[in-house]
Amino acid sequence: MEKKSVIDRLIQNIDEKSCPIVVGLDPVISRIPGHLKDKALEKFGNTRQGAAEALFQFNRELIQELHTLIPAIKLQMACYELYGSYGISVFERTVALAQQHGLSVIDDSKRNDIGNTAQIYAQSHIGKTPLIEGEAELDKAEFLTINPFLGSDSIDPFVNECDKNDKGLFVLVRTSNPSSEQYQTAQSGDKPLFHQIALDLEKISSQRIGNQGFSNIGAVVGARWDKEAHELRNLMPSVYFLVPGFGAQGATADQVSTSFNKNGYGALINSSRGIIFAYESKDSGKSFQDPENFASASAKAVIEMRDSLLKALSKNSKLPEQW
Amino acid sequence: MEKKSVIDRLIQNIDEKSCPIVVGLDPVISRIPGHLKDKALEKFGNTRQGAAEALFQFNRELIQELHTLIPAIKLQMACYELYGSYGISVFERTVALAQQHGLSVIDDSKRNDIGNTAQIYAQSHIGKTPLIEGEAELDKAEFLTINPFLGSDSIDPFVNECDKNDKGLFVLVRTSNPSSEQYQTAQSGDKPLFHQIALDLEKISSQRIGNQGFSNIGAVVGARWDKEAHELRNLMPSVYFLVPGFGAQGATADQVSTSFNKNGYGALINSSRGIIFAYESKDSGKSFQDPENFASASAKAVIEMRDSLLKALSKNSKLPEQW
Repeated sequence: MEKKSVIDRLIQNIDEKSCPIVVGLDPVISRIPGHLKDKALEKFGNTRQGAAEALFQFNRELIQELHTLIPAIKLQMACYELYGSYGISVFERTVALAQQHGLSVIDDSKRNDIGNTAQIYAQSHIGKTPLIEGEAELDKAEFLTINPFLGSDSIDPFVNECDKNDKGLFVLVRTSNPSSEQYQTAQSGDKPLFHQIALDLEKISSQRIGNQGFSNIGAVVGARWDKEAHELRNLMPSVYFLVPGFGAQGATADQVSTSFNKNGYGALINSSRGIIFAYESKDSGKSFQDPENFASASAKAVIEMRDSLLKALSKNSKLPEQW
Repeated sequence: MEKKSVIDRLIQNIDEKSCPIVVGLDPVISRIPGHLKDKALEKFGNTRQGAAEALFQFNRELIQELHTLIPAIKLQMACYELYGSYGISVFERTVALAQQHGLSVIDDSKRNDIGNTAQIYAQSHIGKTPLIEGEAELDKAEFLTINPFLGSDSIDPFVNECDKNDKGLFVLVRTSNPSSEQYQTAQSGDKPLFHQIALDLEKISSQRIGNQGFSNIGAVVGARWDKEAHELRNLMPSVYFLVPGFGAQGATADQVSTSFNKNGYGALINSSRGIIFAYESKDSGKSFQDPENFASASAKAVIEMRDSLLKALSKNSKLPEQW
């Protein structure tokens, strides 16, 4: 049997868990439970290495607790870069650990540059590493986020590297932050710029469709209104959406359900701090306010989020039969 | 006497060398002279660490040779990220070494994200590092490049971090790559998108003007035509331009001179591979085809580039008197 492609593996993961959620591992040191910080302090002192180690132990427990519930994790690169070489090591160790637990991994780095340099970024994140002699094949994330502002010169080199290494992308098409209107809604011919980017992306995507009707070239779509999400879903039928903005950032389950197609596929809903720091929440019930059991609070938050998403999909007649 | 601000220090460096050139340290392993690769192989084997070490030794010789000629270097982050934690260490060591030699340093990472995450990127590259207890103040570059596609939510957190730490930015406004037309020239109201970005940037910049009439908030302007560069110079009088595209990418000295203001300031012209790999060039004269003397070939290339720029500035009556 042929090995499944990167997007088909993601969809299989989603089906196996009946769960279209990607949890963002975006740890910040000030919110890591005290006992993990104490242990790291003891071992490495109050150094960058110590802080990075505390982040890794936090990630490790979350992966162990959540991998049976969710199909994928997303790592926000900024949180790791902050600790220099120590942070990058923790990023790499987290990717490897998640993959050992069967999770699909999204490297959320929003990289962008042109030509040769874009290719080097692509090699860094989803490709092979040129050594003095030959090249090394290291564990890398399955998907990378990129920023398309510089045009196809900044997209094609990443797509090429995906083709070579069976990897995927999520390209920023539309974001839901307040200032996203500032430049994304400029007019490109007769349409808003983000529609133009969507059309350009569908063109690339439609040449790479896998067994489940989607390609490895996805989009970040944090649509600000249902109507917008609906339009984008229609403009990019072969493109999987990575959807930020759920929960903490204000989008409801009903709103994000617009990003799924009629069969209940095509969207992976992200929640980061709302899940990983659930133990801080006053709503999470007495038994989960214990920082030592932070991962259980996160599992509870995932289950609640899944329930609300599945309810919304069901209400909109989009719940996949097999879930 | 008050310590000069980051932009005034850059301008002082430019004046001291009478040279508006920033050399891009964008090393790629396949083009590093063989003797450096052999030494790194011997010491670290054919590993990521070995490749990264060869890049560092290449950078080290270039900095030692060029620091008396040029005011600044720019490091293309992709080239370092490629080697994971080893590459990041080499990035940090190169920044520190360049600063010890009095050079201003630009971290060319084109980072972008919103809100909290943008702030973490800013801390990573130009700010302080939060530890388990308190924060660490590490040597970082003076300037960072960022991508503005996500709007002010993706710009303000970087500007705030600059204000706190006396650092600066170069924000992508206009690039000269073939596909730059694709999205940058969408219409924003009655003007092209890149004009809108320029106006928004001048607003931020004009509130931060230093002693030399420029602010710490600069722009990447790889204008595709003289007319465009001229317009952008007028739209952003307080903004220093980082100008890519010279030499290898096709822009002549006459063309880039449009990016300078009437006093001969306001632009820092970048050349990367044309300088650092000058030793490969068949035009560089017999004595410089020796890979062991690669840094001398680079110095010669810098001097030639400087001569052609100064000639073009002089021709356009823009040569600063004191140079």
